[in-house]
Parts: sequence; structure tokens; C-alpha cells
Amino acid sequence: MLVCIRMERNFRDLLEAQWDAGKFLSVGLDSDFSKIPASARVEGVRETLVNFNVAIVNATRAVAGSYKLNSAFYEAHGELGWTALQETVEYIHGELPDMPVILDAKRADIGNTNDGYVQALFERLNADAVTVHPYLGGEALAPFLKNPEKGVFVLCRTSNPGAGEFQDLESGGKPLYMHVAERVRDGWNANKNCGLVVGATYPEEMKKIRAVADDMPFLIPGIGAQGGDLEKTVASGRDSRGKGFVIAASRAIIFASGGDDFAEVAGAKAAELSTAIQAAL
Amino acid sequence: MLVCIRMERNFRDLLEAQWDAGKFLSVGLDSDFSKIPASARVEGVRETLVNFNVAIVNATRAVAGSYKLNSAFYEAHGELGWTALQETVEYIHGELPDMPVILDAKRADIGNTNDGYVQALFERLNADAVTVHPYLGGEALAPFLKNPEKGVFVLCRTSNPGAGEFQDLESGGKPLYMHVAERVRDGWNANKNCGLVVGATYPEEMKKIRAVADDMPFLIPGIGAQGGDLEKTVASGRDSRGKGFVIAASRAIIFASGGDDFAEVAGAKAAELSTAIQAAL
Repeated sequence: MLVCIRMERNFRDLLEAQWDAGKFLSVGLDSDFSKIPASARVEGVRETLVNFNVAIVNATRAVAGSYKLNSAFYEAHGELGWTALQETVEYIHGELPDMPVILDAKRADIGNTNDGYVQALFERLNADAVTVHPYLGGEALAPFLKNPEKGVFVLCRTSNPGAGEFQDLESGGKPLYMHVAERVRDGWNANKNCGLVVGATYPEEMKKIRAVADDMPFLIPGIGAQGGDLEKTVASGRDSRGKGFVIAASRAIIFASGGDDFAEVAGAKAAELSTAIQAAL
Repeated sequence: MLVCIRMERNFRDLLEAQWDAGKFLSVGLDSDFSKIPASARVEGVRETLVNFNVAIVNATRAVAGSYKLNSAFYEAHGELGWTALQETVEYIHGELPDMPVILDAKRADIGNTNDGYVQALFERLNADAVTVHPYLGGEALAPFLKNPEKGVFVLCRTSNPGAGEFQDLESGGKPLYMHVAERVRDGWNANKNCGLVVGATYPEEMKKIRAVADDMPFLIPGIGAQGGDLEKTVASGRDSRGKGFVIAASRAIIFASGGDDFAEVAGAKAAELSTAIQAAL
């Protein structure tokens, strides 16, 4: 008998397994160096970032369904930050082989220039998924989209107060963000590896996007520090199976205490949010 | 008598001085490691990138009006690439104090998260200007826009074949890229530090954008390897003073030879293009 086993690590499969286990929370390791508590600090910027992240991962791993790292907080420290990012992802992969890691890098360049970013984010940092800007179109993003094993979350309706400046512009009776959702669904998602970034701060828009997005996963920032409503978000964001979304929270978890008990409090806050998501399902 | 001298380094002032000297060419240090000729290679990735860049800068400095570094080609090499980027910018600033350095990083996140990118690009790497995506709106980009000394080029009409997927969507009788141009002019440019990225591959669109963009500088990719027409580009892109634009070319200069004479050929190609731009003015 010939048994075939898929050996690749597939982002969507990892995500589905987390959802099956009731895990919808993405813990954001937006590790702003200036906010790292004294008790997590060691000699060196890189070492402090990694030390803090490891403590947060260990405190939240029981309830996290993924980890999301925003590259801005690491790039601020140049090559040391870059190395801290890489070591953190390596730690998560090593400790938690089934845990998806999302690099919130918000990249996008034209054509082959993206090869450099693909090499940086997917190969060198070994992220399972990234976030990208849609403005240049799907043709430009081909280097990101072509790998079926890696997830690509396209910015659709973002969580910031000024998101509507262009995203709400109506064209052909539909706002721009709906065009983005439909184009990603119809044109970009041939490898079934696309998702959409949809802010929790706009639940009505989220409902409209879910109505056209089929089963594409949503990456949802805006719960926690930004004030999005959890119940409305879950009701608006879930797919026909009651799954299909990842709720990202960072500051409200990792800097909830700011004191010596930062890891313990982060674990408690993450557990609380995970339980609240499950209750809202 | 009290004499007041402005000590800050201001991107727009640097650019104006280059234009006054007839220099409109931005040499793109998109230094794809795999294409660096054998004669520029030394031990180490970082050292090779810097060695190649220094040779190109020295060969083109007489005609370059700015240098543009696309971060993707450096990030592909992780912390080594980051250090190479930093050392290259330091070299240019040290050798050519009046030369503007543009970091083509195509960043944009929400609100304070951009502080990390501002720190990375403006402070750590000490770039004079960056490129950003418009999709999140001007409110999100405040950390980039608030420094009057640093330039911010907003992607408007990009040079890639699929640029029109969203950029051409009509809203209120105008395509999205015209909304971007007008919003940047009216809302984002309070510190007179904004510019627009407009591809040479779309001269008709460029003409429409120039008609509403007042004296905002254009950063124009697409001449050279991408096939944009130089005369049409200059005619469409120049402002009312016959200035106001930067034509960026990379591959067609830095990899024109690919052999031992790469620097000599790069110098000749840059001089040729600079002369052609002046002839088209």
C-alpha cells in the first residue's frame, strides 16, 4: 500500500486545525521596546525583545490560535530588531509546531521586486502568512500569491479612524473595499491562500464583506485597545461554518500589566478574550 | 547683525538644488545580489552589497540628482541586508552631503505603529524621503507626514501592467488615482513635504495628475527596463517651472553591463539618461 503524506506546512490547514480546537485568538507580539517591563529586560535590545516575546508566548500558548508579529516594532531597531523577529519566529515554530505565525508586514511592491520581500518574510523569517496592501493590484502581488502553502491577508477595510478616506469611495455603486474583497475572491485566490484584513471597529462593513467573501479567512484587528465590539465582530465576521476568522489583540494582552506580573496578566487576558470569543460564537 | 541659518537637512531644498543644477535622474540601487558581477564580489553578502553600491555611486555621482534604494533587495538578506542598506546610505551622506537619498520602502501601517517605520527609515537609516501606500488614508500616515524635513512620496499611479485594477476605478467621475492626487494635495501636504509616485508607463495619466498636483514632486519609475517613453514622460511630468520630477532608473544602469566593466558602463548609461532628460526638458 502506498501512503502519501503531505509534508508541506500549509497555513490554511494550520488555521483550520486551530479553529477546530476552538482557537480564534491571534496574540499580537507588537513588542514596543519602550513598554517592555523592567522585569523582562536583559542586557541588549535583541535579547530583551526575544526574552519578552518568549515569556508572552509561554504565558499565552494554551489559548492562542496564532501569533501575529508587526514588523514595524522590530525594524525600529534595525539589524538587532530583525534578528529578534527571526529568533522569536524560530522559537514559536520550535516549541509549537502547529501554531501559525502571521507577519503583519503590510508590504507590496511591483512584480519581481516582491521576490525580495517573499524571500525575507516567507523564506528567511519563515512566516506562515503575511499582510499586503492591495493598491498595486493582483498582478503586482503574484510573487506572494503563487505559493499555496503561505497565507496572504489583503488589507480590505482597516481598523483606523481615517480608513474610509479612500476605502469608502463608491465606484459602480460599491465602495472600494468591496471591490477589493471581490477581486481577491475572484482573481487573487486561485491558490486558496488569500484572506482579508477587516477591522473590528467597522462591524457593518465587515458584514457586507463577509457576504461576498465566501470562506476566505478574516484577520481582524481593532478589538481591545481600539475599542471594537466583540459580539458584533464575531456575528459579522464568522463564515457559514461559524469559523473563518482570527481576532488579533496585542497591547490589551502583552502590555495589560506593565509590571513584574506582565506574563501572568497577559496569560489571564488572553484566556479571558479567547473565552469571550468562544462565548460569542 | 543677526544671521539665522537653517541647520536642518530638508528634502525638498536638496531636491530643488539638484534641479537647479539640471539633475533629474535618481539612480536606483536595487542591488539584486544574484546579479552583482563577479568583479564586485568580496567575502560576505553585506560587504558585497556595499562594495557594489559604492562602485555604482562613485561611477554615477557626477550626474545623479538623487539615489533611490528599494528595501526589498536588502531585506531579502535579513540583518546583513539591513546593515548593507545602512552603510550605503551612510556612504552617500558622507561623500555627497547635498545628495537626497530616497528609501523606496512602500510602507504604511496604522497610526502609531508607523512610528516604528519612521524610526527605522528616517532616524536609523537616515533617509531623506520614503515611499508609502495610500490605502489606509492620511490619518494613518501622520507619523510620516509630520516631519517637514523629510519627503513622503505617495503611490498614486504605479508603473506596473496591472496598476489599473483599483487605481482606475472611477468614483464621482474620477479614477481613484486622481482622488489620491487631490487628497494628498489638499489634505496631506500641510508641511509641503509630499510627492507622488507616477509611472512613466502611463504618460496620459501622468498629464492628468500633473494638472491637479500643483508643484508636488513626482517620483517616476518605469523608464529603462519597463519601457516608458522619456520625451512623453518629461512633457507630462514637469511642473509649471519645467522642474518638479525625479526619473528613477535602476536595472538599466546598474546591471547594464553585468561584466567587469559594470561601473564604467553604469556611469555611461547614467550620463546618457541624464543628458536625454535635459534634452527633453
